[in-house]
Amino acid sequence: MDKKTGSCDLSSLDAFFKPSSIALIGVSKDIRRPSGRSLNALLKWNYPGKLYPINPNHTEIHDLPCYPALPDVPGEVDMVIISVPAPAVMAALEQCAQKKVKAVVLFTSGFAEIGAEGKALQDEITRLSQKNNLRILGPNCVGLVNLSNAVMASFANIVDLKPVYPMTLGFVTQSGAFGTLIFAHAVAAGVGFSSFVSVGNEADTEFADFLYYLLTTEKTKVVGGYLEGAKNGVKLRKAAKEALKLKKPILIMKVGRTGAGARAASSHTGSLAGDDKIYDAFFRQMGIIRIETLAELTSFVIVHRGGRLPQGNNIGILSISGGAGVLMADKCEALGLNVPEFTGETRRALEKYLPSFGSAKNPVDLTAAAVAQPEMLGKCLRALVADENIHMVSVAMGFMPHSAPVLAHDLIEIYRSTTKPIALTTYNISESEIVAKAIKSIEEAGMPVLRDHLHSVHALANLAWYAGKLRRFAEIKTQRQVISPKPGIEKLIKKPTALSEYEAKKILAAYGIPVTREKLAKTADQAIKLARKIGYPVAMKISSAQIMHKTEAGGILLDIKTDAQVRAAFKKIIASAKKYMPQADIQGVLVQEMLAGGTEAIVGTIDDPVFGPCVMFGLGGVFVEALKDVSFRVAPVSRADAEEMVREIKGYSVLRGLRGKPPADMEALIDVILKVSRLAYDHKNIIKEMDINPLIIFEKGAKVADALIIKK
Amino acid sequence: MDKKTGSCDLSSLDAFFKPSSIALIGVSKDIRRPSGRSLNALLKWNYPGKLYPINPNHTEIHDLPCYPALPDVPGEVDMVIISVPAPAVMAALEQCAQKKVKAVVLFTSGFAEIGAEGKALQDEITRLSQKNNLRILGPNCVGLVNLSNAVMASFANIVDLKPVYPMTLGFVTQSGAFGTLIFAHAVAAGVGFSSFVSVGNEADTEFADFLYYLLTTEKTKVVGGYLEGAKNGVKLRKAAKEALKLKKPILIMKVGRTGAGARAASSHTGSLAGDDKIYDAFFRQMGIIRIETLAELTSFVIVHRGGRLPQGNNIGILSISGGAGVLMADKCEALGLNVPEFTGETRRALEKYLPSFGSAKNPVDLTAAAVAQPEMLGKCLRALVADENIHMVSVAMGFMPHSAPVLAHDLIEIYRSTTKPIALTTYNISESEIVAKAIKSIEEAGMPVLRDHLHSVHALANLAWYAGKLRRFAEIKTQRQVISPKPGIEKLIKKPTALSEYEAKKILAAYGIPVTREKLAKTADQAIKLARKIGYPVAMKISSAQIMHKTEAGGILLDIKTDAQVRAAFKKIIASAKKYMPQADIQGVLVQEMLAGGTEAIVGTIDDPVFGPCVMFGLGGVFVEALKDVSFRVAPVSRADAEEMVREIKGYSVLRGLRGKPPADMEALIDVILKVSRLAYDHKNIIKEMDINPLIIFEKGAKVADALIIKK
Repeated sequence: MDKKTGSCDLSSLDAFFKPSSIALIGVSKDIRRPSGRSLNALLKWNYPGKLYPINPNHTEIHDLPCYPALPDVPGEVDMVIISVPAPAVMAALEQCAQKKVKAVVLFTSGFAEIGAEGKALQDEITRLSQKNNLRILGPNCVGLVNLSNAVMASFANIVDLKPVYPMTLGFVTQSGAFGTLIFAHAVAAGVGFSSFVSVGNEADTEFADFLYYLLTTEKTKVVGGYLEGAKNGVKLRKAAKEALKLKKPILIMKVGRTGAGARAASSHTGSLAGDDKIYDAFFRQMGIIRIETLAELTSFVIVHRGGRLPQGNNIGILSISGGAGVLMADKCEALGLNVPEFTGETRRALEKYLPSFGSAKNPVDLTAAAVAQPEMLGKCLRALVADENIHMVSVAMGFMPHSAPVLAHDLIEIYRSTTKPIALTTYNISESEIVAKAIKSIEEAGMPVLRDHLHSVHALANLAWYAGKLRRFAEIKTQRQVISPKPGIEKLIKKPTALSEYEAKKILAAYGIPVTREKLAKTADQAIKLARKIGYPVAMKISSAQIMHKTEAGGILLDIKTDAQVRAAFKKIIASAKKYMPQADIQGVLVQEMLAGGTEAIVGTIDDPVFGPCVMFGLGGVFVEALKDVSFRVAPVSRADAEEMVREIKGYSVLRGLRGKPPADMEALIDVILKVSRLAYDHKNIIKEMDINPLIIFEKGAKVADALIIKK
Repeated sequence: MDKKTGSCDLSSLDAFFKPSSIALIGVSKDIRRPSGRSLNALLKWNYPGKLYPINPNHTEIHDLPCYPALPDVPGEVDMVIISVPAPAVMAALEQCAQKKVKAVVLFTSGFAEIGAEGKALQDEITRLSQKNNLRILGPNCVGLVNLSNAVMASFANIVDLKPVYPMTLGFVTQSGAFGTLIFAHAVAAGVGFSSFVSVGNEADTEFADFLYYLLTTEKTKVVGGYLEGAKNGVKLRKAAKEALKLKKPILIMKVGRTGAGARAASSHTGSLAGDDKIYDAFFRQMGIIRIETLAELTSFVIVHRGGRLPQGNNIGILSISGGAGVLMADKCEALGLNVPEFTGETRRALEKYLPSFGSAKNPVDLTAAAVAQPEMLGKCLRALVADENIHMVSVAMGFMPHSAPVLAHDLIEIYRSTTKPIALTTYNISESEIVAKAIKSIEEAGMPVLRDHLHSVHALANLAWYAGKLRRFAEIKTQRQVISPKPGIEKLIKKPTALSEYEAKKILAAYGIPVTREKLAKTADQAIKLARKIGYPVAMKISSAQIMHKTEAGGILLDIKTDAQVRAAFKKIIASAKKYMPQADIQGVLVQEMLAGGTEAIVGTIDDPVFGPCVMFGLGGVFVEALKDVSFRVAPVSRADAEEMVREIKGYSVLRGLRGKPPADMEALIDVILKVSRLAYDHKNIIKEMDINPLIIFEKGAKVADALIIKK
């Protein structure tokens, strides 16, 4: 396993999921103890391979021969489950290495989670696993289960639950306890798991490895994860990309404290880059559905099971209650779906079938009349499904004994006649057998059935968002921005000392990013010459790599209009700077064209510890200062990413031109974002943070007015 | 019932909830038909009063004597349930009036909901009810139930459900179908109803009447509502005020399409006042908890049942899973609760009881160790409850057979030892009898128990918000802002024609609102004199009541510095205005002081069809233009309301002073809001819309730079 490049030898994980034999070191007869529980479950669910209990105090456990130690086991052992106390773990692992075991599930806790001492012990585990190419899951984990072949290598109570079909969800969790709750909740909601992995302290294998692995297994159609923090963003990105290729959605519940996440940073961009913002940006960028509740996970899996993706974001809503319909429509719009009005044939058909005026709007209100005439639902649904402008339908209907058979017949027939996703919400308003049977027949026909109309539309919204990401991925996957910067620029970037604004802009310009016309003046006379050449008015700024905050140093004077003003300004700027920082190395005074008009923006980069270089975009002024209205993406960004970044901010309407102002040049802006991304990515080992603040975007073109590049 | 003043004769609704006798006109033997269903339920649940089936085709129904018509019934009849077809309804109602019936529940549909013809018929019902002082519920409703005395005047399937105790929730719904779903969902979640009312088309009685009535009943501790649109905002406000007095929370699910709600308006304020924004503001103002999901309703009722209110917004979180704890903390912060770090004694205690470093933070992570040592939970919870800085606690714990008795014992003991709210989340991870029994004992001890940790913290957040509103209400209830405007101003307001900026500002000034120094000039010479007096630079503006958009008319010139400039400006402004609108009545040119610096804001009012005059506040520039970042309250607003309005906007930090800028004068701003509210409220029959745009807020003081008052 090569952690640096993020590649993951998937085949080395096979032994966790398809072991021909399992030994249990430290196993107990007591089925309430971890390893005892696991052995019991392996037997109960008829694990088909060989089982070797290891315990010097017994000769047999549950009718299986028990061995004093691992070397005593005859023949090969694929997987070992270890539950001995922490101090005995290393010895057990040494035996595993000698026995050429392929995979170890290490339940034991008392490692990095308890402090420095435990961390040292855990580092030994990591070294041993790398040296011997021994894959280890854990320590401090509840293990893993692979349900199709009864690999019950876990002590969580999930091993007691009856498996649910179809087994489409693969799940990886960084929290054993919470993962277990998610499993139990999902099973209760009728969601079946293919595999479940608790990664614990990730001494060897990690979250992203299993995410990737599960994607490649045939049974798994959706991968879910509970994530506290990724060890390796590059690996996670590779897994996410593979998921898009395989068209298997990833859903991740990522926790991160609201208040926390601000970092110590010298740049503006750095101070705005909370951890959670970067994760959020990464998930959007890579088409990972970020979920907040368990219901979101289970309802998505159920809706996705239908095997259909909407071709657009337009939803038709058909509901027995006008109120429920409006609530669903509100939720849809809040989640980015459109609820378009019906026109033409659709409207005419609905008006024919519906009892009262107004119901033919979207959402369709079937009214109480549909209780007595259940065939109304089918008639209206047929009209919606036939409408080319409608990409998916959400139906919310109460089933009663008299109506259930009619409803089921119509719904199944319509569902089979179309390829559009249809999600049905039934409510628990009748406990009749007839109702239960009707609903079961609908489920068996493949149509997703849920119990809550808001969960239903949320799942459809996530499905539509994901489908959009898939379409976008198909369009842009080959598009990779490569820029050849002007030669000679490498030397400047790699210069051992800090960079001044003048130098930073030279680097930007070498990447094709337009910057203000400017030159460095060593004397006042030179400054006057430059100012005349650039054209009045000009701006003048102190040029020194040590002075990062030029305004505070009194190092900026603007709107200078005459030769005399230039001379005075030169003197004043040098004097102020010397006073502000006597030891600063002053390169001279930068004479710069003054930019007039346009919209102020900020483009910057940070170097995230997990994801590496990330690009930020925002508008200047209150948008950044008061509202922190910025968007991020992980570099390198694609054109589509850059477009999303621009559209994502709240102040986007400012760029489109407010109150008759002409719109800003989006193409020029996107070009700057792409080039900044490239620059940061090409030199990720050197550049720590970067600020273009402000970038002035005009009706035509854009220009960097000030820039800061901070090196590592 | 006097609709104009919003007063509601509550006693006249008594007959709906405590009728001594009920007649059913149009009742059928068939218990699947509406009235048959209702009669069946009345009998099944042993309604204690007299029952009179009315149907000319039967002599008895379900062993009760059946009468041909209402006049044939011997003795008095309190309530009548009518389910005859629409054309027969008026005749039935006439009989009710003659028989001196007090209350009618009218199931029949086919009225306003089907169009103009139905509306005409419904208007007849309204007239009849008013003339005869006959209270009518409906038409087109599913009726009402009062569970404590088995008044099952409904045909919805809610009458079949077994009642749940305690019966604390009173519910009013504008949608019969959706109300029924809410009822079934709540009952399944263990929430008991006192009464349930479906108001239908509200021909006579309306939503707010029943909301108010239910508040006054002893059993009802919480009132819930499903609302599409209130008929009368004043009534709703009175009910909400009464609820605050009685300390009974109101929860309302209000639907309103996201996209819709913009209105045709001449003022800026008017164009920003979507219907839903006004409702939202009203709910906040009056302490009504606005809910979006059914789970929010049920979990609030369960948590409120504990009978405790938190004394502040600080929550302690104690969870078996670190991940669940962090999710809960995230949700808490998103919902306005604080999750403070523990210090001092609390921290020391937690560090003693918890196995690993880091767990003593808030949220407390009990870790898997608490599975084996369930007494850990009690120890930690005691420390949290003892902490003065913690106002409520959310505990999330999985119960297992071996741990359940210990957990129940400790939780009950601790709950009894404190008055702080504690909500317990248990997960469905064990189906053991021992676990069920333990959880039941906790519920019986009065502690709220929920199944979902996010629902739990959401309910606590709503409870804390409500408690804050109650505290605020206790402080300010007597505070009523009365302003005596300068005399003579009435005449100007009541002037039959439109008002110019100059006139509008005179009215504002009469209410004590500071406006720019300015005077009207009829000639250029007069303008020069005024400008000298006011002091250069000045602004000059066309003054004409017909020209509302002065900028478009070329009617504004700014920063005029000399006599010569004044002369030129006068000429230019008059010429532009005449060209723009030849028929306009031009009063002259307003010469005005130029305001420098400060923060631009907008304060305005609209006249809402439901709630009457409402006040808006926002910051100028992009905040209003691009972000629509404004807050509303219904007039008259209290000081506390005005403070909330100011703090509520996203750009609030701008007012507090960004990047070293001094903070804006909040007192001056709040004073303007209060006076504008008063002006709009005093003259609600005249003023349609008002814009103060911009109001300039300085470090000291604030001043109106431009104003528009539009009359009805």
